[in-house]
Amino acid sequence: MEYFSKDMDNLVQELGRLPGIGQKSAQRLAYHIINGDKERAYALSESIKRARDSIRYCKSCCTLTDEEYCPICASSERNHAQIMVVENPRDMGAYERVGKYNGVYHVLHGAISPLLGIGPDDIRLKELMQRLQGDVEELIIATNSSLEGETTASYIVKLVKPMGIKLTRIASGVPVGGDIENIDEITLLRALDGRVSL
Amino acid sequence: MEYFSKDMDNLVQELGRLPGIGQKSAQRLAYHIINGDKERAYALSESIKRARDSIRYCKSCCTLTDEEYCPICASSERNHAQIMVVENPRDMGAYERVGKYNGVYHVLHGAISPLLGIGPDDIRLKELMQRLQGDVEELIIATNSSLEGETTASYIVKLVKPMGIKLTRIASGVPVGGDIENIDEITLLRALDGRVSL
Repeated sequence: MEYFSKDMDNLVQELGRLPGIGQKSAQRLAYHIINGDKERAYALSESIKRARDSIRYCKSCCTLTDEEYCPICASSERNHAQIMVVENPRDMGAYERVGKYNGVYHVLHGAISPLLGIGPDDIRLKELMQRLQGDVEELIIATNSSLEGETTASYIVKLVKPMGIKLTRIASGVPVGGDIENIDEITLLRALDGRVSL
Repeated sequence: MEYFSKDMDNLVQELGRLPGIGQKSAQRLAYHIINGDKERAYALSESIKRARDSIRYCKSCCTLTDEEYCPICASSERNHAQIMVVENPRDMGAYERVGKYNGVYHVLHGAISPLLGIGPDDIRLKELMQRLQGDVEELIIATNSSLEGETTASYIVKLVKPMGIKLTRIASGVPVGGDIENIDEITLLRALDGRVSL
């Protein structure tokens, strides 16, 4: 027991369960919450409960949303025959910020990881396969370039290939502005393999 | 708006208000809370509210506690005539872990900082002065070696000196195991000024 208050110890413990929050950070956060404005603490507490209660997934692309369908899936201006598969809503947000993609998305909410015991049934793959029964021309696989992302990509390719839908993978290579000397070997190899003629 | 859910955006915003939690971290934490176990999210929400509601300050030393007096102030085995002034309960916890100090504490909950607009009335100084009316032999000032900590220390010295109570300051110098070449100039100067004869 670090403090002479069970409620405080409990708060430190709960905060310490969050990803990337260690014991010291949890203590600092808890102390800030306790010593700060009461309204702020209530707002934080309430926002956690409300968000967890209200959270819904788009019936089509599975992203987080308040409505039955997210604004992208509900839009008639997007190309619904082009689906980009991403791991989570933040990746979707990143592409939306770029603003150049006019198709729709599919959010897997994770990636296959035998190491962490995450199999194909633990991510939103079934929902993707169902969507592919419809009128889909191209499936762009935009999972991460990590082991899990690549495993997931291969798995999807194996499932979708026989269906005759155009399958693409976002390019992997040296990031713009990246210093070649600081980039890992696998990325450099990918950049070489994926070289384009000028 | 990053997500298509107002509750989610709200949660990200509230989390982002915590110290040391940036926009990206807030998003990652919010996503973890939303996608994780419902019981965990409820427990976190509840622990924030409960801790904020139940928090009390020891009537003597002002540390966080569940009781009227913290276990240290309530103990008859501690020397109540020796008071160590610290900035926050974590500093108190650090000295308690050392386990060699047998006096009691006084927790200021902050330090004087003209820059941040924190004056003597914003920390628990009044409570300290009240305690000094009692039977106190020594006041050990253990505020940090920062600008704020030193300012606070000087302020306390000015107030307490005329009272004839023995005043001490924890030693400042090279940390044990510290590499002299990596230590800042002020600390080195302090270590030199505070040198002891062998």
